[in-house]
Parts: sequence; structure tokens; C-alpha cells
Amino acid sequence: MQTSDNTAQQLIAEMGQKARAASALLANVPVARKADALNLAAAELRARADEILAANQRDIQAGEQAGLSGAMLDRLRLTPERLDGIAAAVDAVAVLRDPVGMVIDEAVRPNGLHLSRVRVPLGVIGIIYESRPNVTADAAALCLKSGNAAILRGGTEAVHSNRAIYAALRAGLIKGGLPEDAIQLVPTQDRAAVGAMLAAHGLIDIIIPRGGKALVARVQEEARVPVLAHLDGICHTYIHPQADPAKARDIALNAKMRRTGICGSMETLLIDRHFADPTPVVAALLDAGCEVRGTPEVRALDARITPARDEDWTTEYLDAICSVAFVDGVEAAIAHINTNGSHHTDAIVTEDASAAEAFLNGVDSAIVMWNASTQFADGGEFGLGAEIGIATGRLHARGPVALEGLTTYKWVVRGTGQTRP
Amino acid sequence: MQTSDNTAQQLIAEMGQKARAASALLANVPVARKADALNLAAAELRARADEILAANQRDIQAGEQAGLSGAMLDRLRLTPERLDGIAAAVDAVAVLRDPVGMVIDEAVRPNGLHLSRVRVPLGVIGIIYESRPNVTADAAALCLKSGNAAILRGGTEAVHSNRAIYAALRAGLIKGGLPEDAIQLVPTQDRAAVGAMLAAHGLIDIIIPRGGKALVARVQEEARVPVLAHLDGICHTYIHPQADPAKARDIALNAKMRRTGICGSMETLLIDRHFADPTPVVAALLDAGCEVRGTPEVRALDARITPARDEDWTTEYLDAICSVAFVDGVEAAIAHINTNGSHHTDAIVTEDASAAEAFLNGVDSAIVMWNASTQFADGGEFGLGAEIGIATGRLHARGPVALEGLTTYKWVVRGTGQTRP
Repeated sequence: MQTSDNTAQQLIAEMGQKARAASALLANVPVARKADALNLAAAELRARADEILAANQRDIQAGEQAGLSGAMLDRLRLTPERLDGIAAAVDAVAVLRDPVGMVIDEAVRPNGLHLSRVRVPLGVIGIIYESRPNVTADAAALCLKSGNAAILRGGTEAVHSNRAIYAALRAGLIKGGLPEDAIQLVPTQDRAAVGAMLAAHGLIDIIIPRGGKALVARVQEEARVPVLAHLDGICHTYIHPQADPAKARDIALNAKMRRTGICGSMETLLIDRHFADPTPVVAALLDAGCEVRGTPEVRALDARITPARDEDWTTEYLDAICSVAFVDGVEAAIAHINTNGSHHTDAIVTEDASAAEAFLNGVDSAIVMWNASTQFADGGEFGLGAEIGIATGRLHARGPVALEGLTTYKWVVRGTGQTRP
Repeated sequence: MQTSDNTAQQLIAEMGQKARAASALLANVPVARKADALNLAAAELRARADEILAANQRDIQAGEQAGLSGAMLDRLRLTPERLDGIAAAVDAVAVLRDPVGMVIDEAVRPNGLHLSRVRVPLGVIGIIYESRPNVTADAAALCLKSGNAAILRGGTEAVHSNRAIYAALRAGLIKGGLPEDAIQLVPTQDRAAVGAMLAAHGLIDIIIPRGGKALVARVQEEARVPVLAHLDGICHTYIHPQADPAKARDIALNAKMRRTGICGSMETLLIDRHFADPTPVVAALLDAGCEVRGTPEVRALDARITPARDEDWTTEYLDAICSVAFVDGVEAAIAHINTNGSHHTDAIVTEDASAAEAFLNGVDSAIVMWNASTQFADGGEFGLGAEIGIATGRLHARGPVALEGLTTYKWVVRGTGQTRP
């Protein structure tokens, strides 16, 4: 194990140095050349479809032999249509607005110094992910578009798919005249390589984990490098006494049931005791096939409701299950959410603007919503084009993280010979 | 030690919970009330001058007995004038523009959802500092103004001064009707308390160390909480062939000698081999009493120049010492700086705009300058009003960190009943 750790450290150190050198070159590449390289990479993905699908078939067969679940095999599986979608997503990133070089603000000081803050790439981004091979292309494209070098470490079950996709991307970069080390795939599936990435302070500027809770938890626990991530999406919808009953029902139903497995799906519904018409809201969930777990008081609304236990208030079901509680007023709703939630996305349904503003101010979450479904918590829905993840931490970038979140800034000071008195 | 660690952890956990509760209240306090409380705190500092100066006298006497250096005693010492300055600085923070509530950007989506990103306080900020008692007031004022709760841990040698200043601040908060736990001073000088702060993931959102290199290095090494800091300020000035000779001399002299002990002072001077007139620049430094260490080629310029060793290129002298090397062209200067520097502040002197832009783009530092002294690297000089520190990391805030750097944002989504298709 010690040898494995040392080998992994050395490997990641070498990859990190190459990535740093590539990032220095990338930082000054014009927008058009980055876009060209991405289009060339997408073309390579299409041209190599047979090869990539064959590699994926090897992963699928190995996965079936290893007894992977149907859901895991589905995440792993590529089809011609899915591969087309991956290539199209790379082309879509190519046309996004490039944040690099954008001036955040500027000022002229009384002594004539001209100051500006200019967006620059973060540098080297580590992506650690699981069975979805599309992450290889998605993450690489977003990193490259924002001028960053990327070190990718995908899941073992997708190893052949990832290598085939990566080979296509790299061929695109080279054709586009970009530094080939701008995107690197960790060549070993040794788990020590993940540990080495997490410890690579100074070599990797930020780690973004893409995958299930166990992966994110390990990364957050072990990393000595800053991490952009969310561990849980325990999202709430609060129905205020002045909620429109139809909106309350439609929003709660959509927030829970549109897709139950995404991080923005509602896990807990809070209904104000003074809301006049709670029964149809709960009935709509039950009728749609949702298991509703409630307090004794909530259970009185409908015989189908099962009892909620303490841990239900802090559980991310990612399934057709919803916990429901009554609360007394906006402040109680805010307190419940700030105590039990995961600072991801929380919504109020009300026609009372001042109650809404109190909720939007008081809830300490990356995304707060008024009269909208929490399922909108998504970079694409926010108009960011694509997201590399959703962050619930408080530093750097919060909520959906897209190109801007992959940049930092530098202060540029232009003078005419000023010295400081 | 184990007991000490456990006690310290428990103490910091309790302080962290109180701070979190206070920060939730503070986040919604109107600007005017925060300003009032700061003015009241400044008034308390003035009203309690005798008490604070007497407490400081106890620290000074203990420091003299402990054999503290003259420089340390000077940093520790308060005078009526210095205390006045501390109170004035608190009043000055009170009138700074409050970043909380500022809308960073907003958009209306095709489905009618109104999105905005709104600045909110970071939450709970830990400040770990050394012998300067003014940090107690400065840091508290900046945290409070930006709506954050602060946990302060000052140096043992300033313990009585810090407690007296803290008591005044707290009295001001209470008079101003703000939550008294918004600012807390760690009541013990047990070093385990510092360790507990550094490990207080989830309780403290960010740690800002204020002090010497040993402190910053320990904090960066041990912290499980994000850190905003700079370890070194190895700042460079590069004199390009098209530099104006008088500007080159004046800027280099000011960058090094105005104040040698600040992080923005120049440590290495890079002179282009094609710059026609290097001798007067080096002579100006030598004449001003600076020790100049150079390569053999540089030593040929002036007999007073001593030999530079390898470690000189990565040393922050914080003293009247300067290393000087020749380089060939802008790219070589950039490579030297990116390899040997500390990503703090680096300047080019030239009349050639395209060379300047290549330098400003290529140097990977928090602050890059053209025809200006690196000594301008300061939040006050940048018009930020006051700074809590200078950060050389790449995440969150970079360069001088002031009120904006003590905030994050939330996404606020306002709808009219939208559900996601």
C-alpha cells in the first residue's frame, strides 16, 4: 500500500506539473481557438463512434459479470444517440460566452492608477467521478472553455469508455493546436490515485467530485485541496397561509415527482398550520404514487400517510418519498430549513410578498425560490448553458457552478510611473 | 494534552454555535444599525482609553520581562494616539459601502422566472492573530460591517489589551442592539484553542490568519476550514528594454525602500539585458542603503553588489535587501516570476504597451502592475477602504480582501407558480 501511495503521488505530481504548464499556455489562448478545438473534439467523438461504443460494450459486459445494478448499468451504457448527445454537448459548450478576460469592475484612483479586476482561469481542476462516461467529455469541455487544465479520474466500471472518449478529446485538442496536456485522464484505476489527487495541494487548485454521496463524502473528508460540491440536496417547499391552493399543489407535486432522483427534488414539504387547504396537496402527492411520511397531525389529513421518524427530516430520499410537517409561520419554516436542510434549494409558496421576502432573506441556502418548483435548481435552467455541479459551500461559487465558477480574477494596475508616498 | 484538546474543541463548538445564531440575526440587520453599533463601539474605545492603556501596560511589562524584541514590543504598544487611530478606523469602517444585499446580476428566463444573485455574509469568520492589539478592533469592525459573526483569537502577549478592547467593542454592540455574540474573543490562551478553530469545519466558514510567516504556515498546514491568506510576498519588478530610465529607477527604489517590511515590497529586481541603463537603478538602491545581491553579471555593474545564492530568488527578505538578475525578454521575466514568486504582486516598467499587456496576462499573480510601485498593493490604496488581508490563493477572493471578500451570494428565484416541464 505504501508503494502504491508513493507511486500514485509521483504520478499525480507529474500530471499536475504538466497540467500547470498547459494551463499557463491555455490562459492566453484566444476564445476562437478554444471553440475550434472543442468542435474538433466533438467531431472526433462522432468519427470514433464505433470504437467508443465497442469500448463501452466491454465495460457493460464486465459490469454485468460483476453484478452491477440495472440503474448502474444504465448510467454506464452508451448508445449511438447518447454518444451523439455527448458530442452535441461539447459543441454547445464551445459557443458559450467565455468568461476569461471579462472585466469585473474598474476604477481610476486619485493618483491616476487605473485598476481593474479581470477574470482568469482557476488553473488546474481535478474531476473525480463515477460510472457516467459522459462526464469525461462534459467536464473536459467546461474546463477547457474556461481556460483551465483538467485532471480527470473516472470510475473503474467505465474505464474503457472513458479511455476511448478521452482519446477522441485529446485528438481534437491536438488538431486544434492546444496543449495536449490541457486534459489528462489518470491512467490507473489504483484507488491511491484518488488519495493523491485529494492531497495535491499546490498542484490541483480545486477538486470537483461528480457522483454519489459516498464519493462526495470521501472527497470532502479527505481533501487538502478546496472542493466544490454538494453532499445532500435536502430541499424544502414551504406552503404559507397566503399560498394560492392550486399553485401550492402544482409546485409541491412537481418539486417532488417530476424527477425524484435529482438533487433539486423536494424531500420535505412544510405546510403552515394556517394554510386552509392542505389535504389536496398531500393527496396529489399520494395519488401520484409518492409515499408520504408525516407527523401525527399530518397523518390526520389522509389515511395513506405513514409515520415520519426523526431521521426523516434530515434524509435525502432521492425517491418517491416525501416527509411532511406542519409549521407555525415563516420564521418557524426558516428555522426548520436552516436546521435540517442542506443549504441547497428551498422554496416558499405564497401570494404575500413580504412573507416571501422574509423567507428569501432568512433561508441560508445557495438557492431560494418564491412560487417555483425546486426542480429548477439547475445551471441549464438558470441560463448558464451547462453546469459542472452544484455547490452548497459558502466560498468561491455557490449554487449551480458553470464557466464563471471555474475562473478567479487578478487585479490589473496600470500606471504612468506612480510611486507610493 | 488530550484533555486540553477536548476542552478546546468543546469551547470552540459552543462559541461556533453562538456565532452561527448571531450571524443569522446579523444577516438581516439594516445597514444603518450596523453603522450605529460600530460608532458606539468606537465611542466605547475612546471612553475606556485609560482602562485599555492600563491593560496594555500590563502586556508591555510582561513582554519586557519575557524578553520580547523591540520590534515586537512596538507592535504590542498602545499610545493614546494609536488608540485614537483604532477608534477612528472603526468609525471609518462604519461608513464603508455595505456589500450585503447588493445584486451581482439578474436575468429573466423565458419561462418568466426572475433570477438574481444577491450578496450575503459568509457567516462565521475566525481571525487568528499575533501581537497587534489593533487587529481585535479592525477585524471585528470589518466582519460586523459585512454582516458576519467573528471569533477572534489574539496572541498571548497581547491578552490584556485584547480583552480590554474586546470589552469596549462588545459594549458598543449591546448598546447598538446587535446580538452580543456577533463578536467573540476566545477566552483562553491555550494553544489547543487554535487547533480547535482550524478543525472547526461547519462551525467556522473561513479562517483569516494575521501575523508572521510561522503563524500563516501553521494555519495553512493544519486548517480543515478554508483559509484566506498569503504566506509570502516575493514581489518582483521587471525593467523592460523600453522602460523609461527615470521611471525605472524611481519605481524600483520606491518598491524596495519605501517600507521594506510590508508584503508588497519588492524582493527581486529583474533587469532586461537589453535595457540600456541598469547601473543608475542599482546605484539608487545601494545609495539608499539597500544591500544588493546579484549574479556575477549583475555584480559587474557596481562593486558594492554582493553575490546572490540560489535561495535568494525565493526569499522574502522583508528588509533592505534586494536580489537582482538579468533576464532576456518578457517571456523570461514571466517564467522567472511564475517559478520563483509567490503570486502576490509583480510589476513591469516599460513604455511598450504590448510588452506590458503580455506581462499583465502572463504573470500568474493576484496583482499585476504596469509602471507602478509594488508598494501600492494595499486595500486602502485600491479604494477598498480597509482590508482584512491579502490573499494569494486562487479561490474566492484574491489580492486585497475587504468587505466584498467577506461575503458570498445566494441565488434568489422569483416565480409566479412555474413548474419544470
